[in-house]
Amino acid sequence: MGFTKQLLKTVITGVHVIQLRRLYRSPQLNHTKRAADWAKNKLPKYRILYVDKVMSQTDPEIAALLEPLRLSVKEQGDIVRTLKQQNAPEVDVKRAVNELKARKKVLEDKELSLAPINAGFDRALLEELLKRRFFYDQSFAIYGAIAGQFDFGPMGCAMKTNLLNVWRNHFVLEESMLEVDCTVLTPEPVLKASGHVERFADLMVKDVKNGECFRLDHLIKGHLEKLMADKKCSSDKKNEYEDVIIKLDGFSKEEMNDILRKYDIKSPITGNEVTDAIEFNLMFSTLIGPSGAVKGFLRPETAQGIFVNFKRLLEFNQKRLPFAAAQIGNAFRNEISPRSGLIRVREFTMAEIEHFVDPTDKTHPKFESVKDVKLTLYSACNQMDGKPAQQVTIGQAVQDKTVANETLGYFMARIYLFMVKVGVDPKRLRFRQHMSNEMAHYATDCWDAECLTSYGWVECVGCADRSCFDLTQHTKATRVKLVAEKDLPEPRQIEMFECLPNKPVIGKAFKADAKVITEALKDLESDDILKYEKEFETNGEFVLKVNDKEFKISKDMASIKRSQKTTHVEEITPGVVEPSFGIGRILYTIWEHSFRIREGDDQRSYLSLPAVIAPIKCSVLPLSGNADFRPLVKKISELLTQNEISNKVDQSGGSIGRRYARTDEIAIPYGITIDFDSLKDQTATLRERDSMEQIRAPIEELAAIVSDLAKGKRSWSDIKVKYPLFEQQESTAKSA
Amino acid sequence: MGFTKQLLKTVITGVHVIQLRRLYRSPQLNHTKRAADWAKNKLPKYRILYVDKVMSQTDPEIAALLEPLRLSVKEQGDIVRTLKQQNAPEVDVKRAVNELKARKKVLEDKELSLAPINAGFDRALLEELLKRRFFYDQSFAIYGAIAGQFDFGPMGCAMKTNLLNVWRNHFVLEESMLEVDCTVLTPEPVLKASGHVERFADLMVKDVKNGECFRLDHLIKGHLEKLMADKKCSSDKKNEYEDVIIKLDGFSKEEMNDILRKYDIKSPITGNEVTDAIEFNLMFSTLIGPSGAVKGFLRPETAQGIFVNFKRLLEFNQKRLPFAAAQIGNAFRNEISPRSGLIRVREFTMAEIEHFVDPTDKTHPKFESVKDVKLTLYSACNQMDGKPAQQVTIGQAVQDKTVANETLGYFMARIYLFMVKVGVDPKRLRFRQHMSNEMAHYATDCWDAECLTSYGWVECVGCADRSCFDLTQHTKATRVKLVAEKDLPEPRQIEMFECLPNKPVIGKAFKADAKVITEALKDLESDDILKYEKEFETNGEFVLKVNDKEFKISKDMASIKRSQKTTHVEEITPGVVEPSFGIGRILYTIWEHSFRIREGDDQRSYLSLPAVIAPIKCSVLPLSGNADFRPLVKKISELLTQNEISNKVDQSGGSIGRRYARTDEIAIPYGITIDFDSLKDQTATLRERDSMEQIRAPIEELAAIVSDLAKGKRSWSDIKVKYPLFEQQESTAKSA
Repeated sequence: MGFTKQLLKTVITGVHVIQLRRLYRSPQLNHTKRAADWAKNKLPKYRILYVDKVMSQTDPEIAALLEPLRLSVKEQGDIVRTLKQQNAPEVDVKRAVNELKARKKVLEDKELSLAPINAGFDRALLEELLKRRFFYDQSFAIYGAIAGQFDFGPMGCAMKTNLLNVWRNHFVLEESMLEVDCTVLTPEPVLKASGHVERFADLMVKDVKNGECFRLDHLIKGHLEKLMADKKCSSDKKNEYEDVIIKLDGFSKEEMNDILRKYDIKSPITGNEVTDAIEFNLMFSTLIGPSGAVKGFLRPETAQGIFVNFKRLLEFNQKRLPFAAAQIGNAFRNEISPRSGLIRVREFTMAEIEHFVDPTDKTHPKFESVKDVKLTLYSACNQMDGKPAQQVTIGQAVQDKTVANETLGYFMARIYLFMVKVGVDPKRLRFRQHMSNEMAHYATDCWDAECLTSYGWVECVGCADRSCFDLTQHTKATRVKLVAEKDLPEPRQIEMFECLPNKPVIGKAFKADAKVITEALKDLESDDILKYEKEFETNGEFVLKVNDKEFKISKDMASIKRSQKTTHVEEITPGVVEPSFGIGRILYTIWEHSFRIREGDDQRSYLSLPAVIAPIKCSVLPLSGNADFRPLVKKISELLTQNEISNKVDQSGGSIGRRYARTDEIAIPYGITIDFDSLKDQTATLRERDSMEQIRAPIEELAAIVSDLAKGKRSWSDIKVKYPLFEQQESTAKSA
Repeated sequence: MGFTKQLLKTVITGVHVIQLRRLYRSPQLNHTKRAADWAKNKLPKYRILYVDKVMSQTDPEIAALLEPLRLSVKEQGDIVRTLKQQNAPEVDVKRAVNELKARKKVLEDKELSLAPINAGFDRALLEELLKRRFFYDQSFAIYGAIAGQFDFGPMGCAMKTNLLNVWRNHFVLEESMLEVDCTVLTPEPVLKASGHVERFADLMVKDVKNGECFRLDHLIKGHLEKLMADKKCSSDKKNEYEDVIIKLDGFSKEEMNDILRKYDIKSPITGNEVTDAIEFNLMFSTLIGPSGAVKGFLRPETAQGIFVNFKRLLEFNQKRLPFAAAQIGNAFRNEISPRSGLIRVREFTMAEIEHFVDPTDKTHPKFESVKDVKLTLYSACNQMDGKPAQQVTIGQAVQDKTVANETLGYFMARIYLFMVKVGVDPKRLRFRQHMSNEMAHYATDCWDAECLTSYGWVECVGCADRSCFDLTQHTKATRVKLVAEKDLPEPRQIEMFECLPNKPVIGKAFKADAKVITEALKDLESDDILKYEKEFETNGEFVLKVNDKEFKISKDMASIKRSQKTTHVEEITPGVVEPSFGIGRILYTIWEHSFRIREGDDQRSYLSLPAVIAPIKCSVLPLSGNADFRPLVKKISELLTQNEISNKVDQSGGSIGRRYARTDEIAIPYGITIDFDSLKDQTATLRERDSMEQIRAPIEELAAIVSDLAKGKRSWSDIKVKYPLFEQQESTAKSA
């Protein structure tokens, strides 16, 4: 193994990948895989070391390779900016944005291929471990399973519970948030108001004969990739197909239909024709109550439960802004064709925060405490300029307006601290700002915390400024004002306008419609009343629109009343900043980021989870099956349980080394081993998973030590200072 | 106030209730209410004291009143027993059981009316508090709300989280259970196998014109009650109607239809005719995936998720029995007409345990540790004999076979300990055994932990022996063997039988059916093969039934192969003991059982929740709004948060007494108050909610004290010994 680290760096970050690319002609990710395989065989020892090299992006060779792609993005970004400034037709802007996204994707793919941060990572190995030790697996497998549904087994479930507890302590407790627990079944009007009934849809097509469904973008991509794989496919054609695939994301329904027909795409299974694109709403629907009259959906997000409770929550907070509400719960999305394991599923746990704030004052009282936290920010601006993400303190980012305000910045920093605490690799975590065209219908600004995994950059946390959208929508739908009162600096005289309908006249004129007209007139806002008053003066009438019908209202039908009022407060609709966590995606990311293989033993893989989320905190292992050990094993296990330390006793016959390996697989961070000395002097050894170091301590003290370690009150180094290192090495123990 | 406790006892347990009953002629609960009102006015001081008197059931006057009713139950219980022994026709047994249940209900109503355990309790007062302080409220209220759905607000949600954490520590951690987290969406075949598709239904009728639905038993009850309320209703008729109402539970669909027609019952809203009884399945259905081809339901219980994962869980437990799996999650039931607040809802959280055990050995290794726990048991036998529930140790109950085995008994004792720990009044908690006719379709024995509330005895935890039902059903449906292997005391020779189909002959004879016949022959069990072998010998053929079709199989179509095998294990289908907790019902019970009103101040109600489940553990109150207090308030709050003690700062202007009252309402068990002495000597007072006692301690020590108190590591008495009582009384503070 004559490689130096310097050579290794060269190998991984550039040269060999490029050499290999010349050798094989296949998609870029495969290059990385091959480079990795090569490195794995040659250099097993350094497999874990690459990470540091990658995010620095300082390698001049890589920079040179990326430069032309960066320029190409910037060029197109400038075009988009110019078009927007000139208020160019929407269709032109859209086309330019599509091109921009396509170029961005080429750049990003290249970046990933040149920075094999996860080199040597083998997803199949990880998945085998996760399924074998039942962290998670497909639901209803004995019934043939259903795509997009997963069950968490004992290890996954315990880890998830721990993750949610950390989340609660980090966010809810720390910020005194108001946590709520709302129902999953949601009546249709609520989700009509929120926009989900109309807009929460993906495009699909159906086999015209057997009705089988295909997600349209997947279908097109699959079809074109098949064409490209054909040896006879010309390079011109290849470029054309590749271009379509890259731009798929941005196409409209009509453009997608055009592609479908242009390439004469059929069902890949039956070869039958397919229908035109259909908008398929992703919400699961059901009927509430026995009559079938009340249509409902399984909530697609937990947020709406908080918005509809806004009045009570404000009341609970003694009517003061700002405050935050939070909710942990399941949400449901009927994906057309779920894939990518836990990344895209039909049923998932979310943890959402809705922070309600005065829209004119988004400072945050605790911003000072996080201002020096350094984040990797990938701003919309950098994305348009083809620039890489940048490391910057959140204080700086808010100051130079990269991040719009302190509240948004505060939460981004808190999200970062949370993610790192639970085991996400900070070097594989970035905040990417949405470009204006990819924002959800409710958002005005959005930064996604994205984690780099073998599936690419995965959105794990969204941090969106939903502005006043939701509260305004629910107010419109229910006529219940969802507003807060804000003290005015000094009392203000306000002029009040009221429209007083003349019922008898309206009744005579409009008969059946009279009631809704009367109601509509009463509900008019001051601005409208003023406008209509003018129309009365000029035309003697105005036109009132109710439920898409128009009615001519003449002067005899309504009068306008003015009055003066002194007010000390003004009503405001709060703005909402929403950090929204996809728990399953975070769990999966942590698994990828913590997957390790023991140096010198390819068969021993383990998960280096932080103790705080490890499913079980401590193992208790007698050195052998000798019956003399039993009482001590029981005593230690009970001591741990009393201290609320989850623990696992393994009295099975295997060698101690093999049993350590088994506990490593399920990420148990600490292991207590009882040997023959324990019987004499009531001490036992304590082993730390990652370093495999062991100390020896009195049994009476072990529960407290593990408890402190698990809660992060003391570190392994602290413990090592206090107790003697235990010298017997694992390899020796292994053969015992 | 010249009443002695002795007089009080007489008042509450008997005489005055009877006097009042003579005075007013109205349903029994109202008597209790009036007796309670009377007692409340006369005896506010002792309002909380009744409880002890009630469950003793030793009052001779009460015993005398109940005696004839007990005899009447026993008489009917004996008839049922005799009929069963004689194998009487099912319809006769059923009729006798209905009569038995009716008599039991009369007895139980009388018991409740004579034992006003909850006297002085005013549900409206409690509900007002719970809604005002947002423990819970109706979901989507601004949209007009939907029956049977409730949201937990910040206080309810925190309490629920705490309750579930205690549950996890008490059950999952203590017993090393395998906790899983399975999906809500469940494909139809799973729930067909479990019996839910066929049997999980209630009877309803529909208005023939507008389709409005009514739960049939509610409709009949409402109709007859209305008739009874008519002054002209004769006492004969009244008795007849009352009899029907009491027996409603036990009627079949046909009997219900007869009643419907006999009394000519119409829609109470429109007066329209109603349809015949319809079986309405209580599961919410939806379609999984875009094609509409996969029908699914929202799970009606979490248990099935565990059963379908049995193989993986057994594997995880290194193939050993017994072990328990657990799951906390939401379940959904589309109740026809939900009522009774949180008691009957459409969406609710369950916590379920499935303990898998060798069906021939249901001893439990930890039974010894609970054998002296005393429970109130209301056995099926006592119910049939008209006897009251009895206080008995679980050790005794298992020994005399009242409770069938140690495993069932162990869990009942553990359930009891859990319920008491989280604040259920042990005097209002009993275990009632199901009589054989009321068992769910899967259960062979069942004890419900029932809590006495203002809604009567409410089932909060079911503890059922589901035997091998579910695993057997899923094995049948999937052909995946859900069994465990059990070591044999010594190896055994077993004879193996195999049926070998002769494919060509079968193919010729049966054409299209050949394939299923071949499969069916291969899958034959040993017993069947032996039987068919004999038929071959006698008739030269046998009749095979596949999918309801019959096929004649002649000797040339199949041969039978015998072989010998030595086996060290036998396969067993484990039995299942299932404790199943309704979290919402437990929460509601705790609220009723902990609702208190301060002596001498009817306006000050509070919740005496155990600290371990109180939503917030500690309040921090400056004596006044003086700005000097602020830094200290902030410091203490931060100290508490660092110790993971949820806390609430109230710096609002109200008097300290009024602020204490506000924290009492949301059950905060401890309150730290900062006064002017605090500024001088860095001490503060700590107040205990129930006693309103205060001690004074250094600020540096307070977080640790509250942490110990909240976790039950130290008691208030321990603290009082160590720190000086603070003398200033609340009433004084109130006027400060």
